[in-house]
Amino acid sequence: MISKRFLSTRFRLQGSVSNHLRRLSTPATMISVDDLNPAVLKVEYAVRGELAIKAEEFRAVLQDPKTASSLPFTKVVSSNIGNPQQKGLDQPPITFLRQVAALTEYPELMKTAKDAFPPDVIERAQELLTEIGSIGAYSLSQGVLFIRKSVAKFIEERDGYPSNPDHIFLTGGASPGVSLLIQMLIKPVTPNNPDPSGILIPLPQYPLYTGTLAQFSGTALPYYLDESNGWSTSPAEIEAALAQAKEKGVIPKALVIINPGNPTGALLDESTQEELVRLCEKHRLVLMADEVYQINLHRPKAAPFTSFKKIVRRLNSPIPLVSYHSISKGVTGECGRRGGYFELANFPDELVALVYKMVSVGLCSPLSGQIGVDSMVRPPKPGSPSYDLWKKETDATQAALASRTHTMATRLNALPGVSCVDSPGALYLFPSLYLPEKAIEEAKKLGKKPDEMYAMDLLKETGICVIPGSGFGQRPGSDHYRLSCLCPGVEEYVGALERFHLSFMKKYE
Amino acid sequence: MISKRFLSTRFRLQGSVSNHLRRLSTPATMISVDDLNPAVLKVEYAVRGELAIKAEEFRAVLQDPKTASSLPFTKVVSSNIGNPQQKGLDQPPITFLRQVAALTEYPELMKTAKDAFPPDVIERAQELLTEIGSIGAYSLSQGVLFIRKSVAKFIEERDGYPSNPDHIFLTGGASPGVSLLIQMLIKPVTPNNPDPSGILIPLPQYPLYTGTLAQFSGTALPYYLDESNGWSTSPAEIEAALAQAKEKGVIPKALVIINPGNPTGALLDESTQEELVRLCEKHRLVLMADEVYQINLHRPKAAPFTSFKKIVRRLNSPIPLVSYHSISKGVTGECGRRGGYFELANFPDELVALVYKMVSVGLCSPLSGQIGVDSMVRPPKPGSPSYDLWKKETDATQAALASRTHTMATRLNALPGVSCVDSPGALYLFPSLYLPEKAIEEAKKLGKKPDEMYAMDLLKETGICVIPGSGFGQRPGSDHYRLSCLCPGVEEYVGALERFHLSFMKKYE
Repeated sequence: MISKRFLSTRFRLQGSVSNHLRRLSTPATMISVDDLNPAVLKVEYAVRGELAIKAEEFRAVLQDPKTASSLPFTKVVSSNIGNPQQKGLDQPPITFLRQVAALTEYPELMKTAKDAFPPDVIERAQELLTEIGSIGAYSLSQGVLFIRKSVAKFIEERDGYPSNPDHIFLTGGASPGVSLLIQMLIKPVTPNNPDPSGILIPLPQYPLYTGTLAQFSGTALPYYLDESNGWSTSPAEIEAALAQAKEKGVIPKALVIINPGNPTGALLDESTQEELVRLCEKHRLVLMADEVYQINLHRPKAAPFTSFKKIVRRLNSPIPLVSYHSISKGVTGECGRRGGYFELANFPDELVALVYKMVSVGLCSPLSGQIGVDSMVRPPKPGSPSYDLWKKETDATQAALASRTHTMATRLNALPGVSCVDSPGALYLFPSLYLPEKAIEEAKKLGKKPDEMYAMDLLKETGICVIPGSGFGQRPGSDHYRLSCLCPGVEEYVGALERFHLSFMKKYE
Repeated sequence: MISKRFLSTRFRLQGSVSNHLRRLSTPATMISVDDLNPAVLKVEYAVRGELAIKAEEFRAVLQDPKTASSLPFTKVVSSNIGNPQQKGLDQPPITFLRQVAALTEYPELMKTAKDAFPPDVIERAQELLTEIGSIGAYSLSQGVLFIRKSVAKFIEERDGYPSNPDHIFLTGGASPGVSLLIQMLIKPVTPNNPDPSGILIPLPQYPLYTGTLAQFSGTALPYYLDESNGWSTSPAEIEAALAQAKEKGVIPKALVIINPGNPTGALLDESTQEELVRLCEKHRLVLMADEVYQINLHRPKAAPFTSFKKIVRRLNSPIPLVSYHSISKGVTGECGRRGGYFELANFPDELVALVYKMVSVGLCSPLSGQIGVDSMVRPPKPGSPSYDLWKKETDATQAALASRTHTMATRLNALPGVSCVDSPGALYLFPSLYLPEKAIEEAKKLGKKPDEMYAMDLLKETGICVIPGSGFGQRPGSDHYRLSCLCPGVEEYVGALERFHLSFMKKYE
């Protein structure tokens, strides 16, 4: 006879073994990649991909005193992303914006710490709070009307043409607005709609566009920018891409223009902009104008910014235009706040209402971002108590970025096997690499693209994280990388880049 | 001979007429609804739909002294949405959270206005800033690790089971995480994948779920909650919905449970939760547990909250679970900040990495929301300088909501033709209306659902904006509305509801 105790032990063991097996088999049996929307697998987003993850690993190694000395560098520099206020970078926040933000967070300070704030800051915060109430409350899905009116005024003053606050949508940075419009324009392929929808995307491009297109199973219709001509945009290249789309049966829906360019930093001249608007008219395209770097201008006289809204209005063009702006870049650099807007032009009311419905499902963009947008479009005026400090801070940021970009481009251009357009705008350089045959063979062996290998080696040897050109798209056979120009201590930084590059070239010569 | 001047005038006129016509024809010729993804047209989101828009119109009328007296009420009460800090409602922000927020916005105040902040607030802000650097910088896409560790600790203390910060994603409220998971789980219908994907959704439900499903062309598989049993969830109803899905060839991918319920306020008991977990095991479903109202409990002894994470771990179940939480509800009520998180359980690493990639495309959630999450999961401890005020504030909010909900339910139940479950949780009531035949006929004539007509009349006569039951889903032939229990001055508010209801019933009797 088997004892009770034995039985119970046996069952316990069985139970435990079966639980153990169950745990082991959990991932395979209950959910796997095969259960997912296959579009998810196709999304690529290099800016926060393999290199960025490796950079975070190194950062953790450096933080631990036991392991810190195992690496040949003492800090990781995140040049992979345009994140001006990141630790170790050198774009300080604008005091005016932060003071307004602090008062809207905790209005009691207007009484308890009145002296810590200039009077125009207190006035602005009061004005915003009167409109908004608590910044802990949802606003209208489209954003606070009062702030949309400020944005409309800013656009009118910039362009000299009217702007309608009802056609402005405040968003959490520019990205959600880009994603929304792509989602709205891409018609899924179905038996009744057999032709895929496509969107014209510049190459190189900020991977938000291809990433979002992959998510919504749209087709990217790439057109190349002309590196030999300062990364300029050629309407003929776009026409060629349209002809290719037609051959493949893809319906083109929109043209994406990034101006100033990301990752190229190029600026469009007005005559090209006019041609592009006419091209959209001819092909019935929505123009998606990503203008988030509109005030990051390093040589504003030689290479000024003109908005597409102004061009469209000046030409009296009927093309549907979506223009994007953000507080993440420019002199504001408030990425973490998540604020921005898009303006619709030439969209019929019915479509504006549909956009409104779609943004409603996501409720509203963060109020701290909305208030950041207000501060961006309504900076202190000359003569007001906050003006001098604001001017000093923003001038310093502009000057530092312009001089750093130029120095970096000059030094990179002096290296063997590197050629770099000296960008007139945005926050980046996108140098071209002419790598030795041996390096290209080595990369092949590793199953990597040559610039991927280069960027990974650079990170491992210097702690500098850049993104290979393959993450942005480039002509086959060419190699690039994007680095942001936000690093402090340009001498030390470029010195490390130079040393790495020379030793890399020597290794594979 | 025609004079030069005449010619030029004539051309000018022609140009102007053609431009004028062009403008008139713009909407029709360049973009129309036919150019859009048809899924966009199917999205419905009643919480911010027709009634909410009409309420905003009334608000504008009341703000203008010339028109204010044209309406039979003096204020609009937005009971259509759970927005605790909205103007005119009565849930004040938590001082501790706002003080921490103000200092992270403008750290200079630690020097210039030190006395305006308790020492534990300063300590917390310093700790956060050491980890984050500037709140104007992007964090990791998944959210600040330090804050994810705080969340993991909160979950561990709540449930008694381990939580992994790497499986926690900080999000801008709960909605973006819901949307992401739905997008990842729904496989588009293609020739190679002919069977539509479905997600089990309770009815009535928060329309985020059906709205997002419509966006991604997924199929809602509705299961009804049992109003006669306090809006309880019946596994048998879900089995029936699954059988129906099978008949229609729809592949069920996930089960959505909202606990505490929205719009019902119902709470699940643990044995039902266990049954639901077993049901997910049996049918290989992802469990999406929307637990954003987890601390909005009006009778916590009789109807406590237990997380699904706890149940899944206690049963040692292998089901993939996504649990959502938010700072928008509860005693925090910080909707406008956009903060929340989701935790993945039993997701293989490969899938966690895919989720990471997808959130990366959207960069990161707002830092002010992430910091809000930290304050929610790490409130002041007993004995700390901020504790007493925090306790007083949160107790007052809990007590006011509980007493108001009960009073409103009792008074609504006393009305002829109304029956209302006295919700034990969340922020809403969802009374059932038994409307006279004549009212139903009148609605039919107007092309409206009866509860839509009722809600619109209520708004027009009292300024109280509620959402008809049809916006949440209800059994055919039944009529309801959802109202939030956040209104102040319950006597005046319920008085207006009662007078309207009685006159409506009389009108159509």
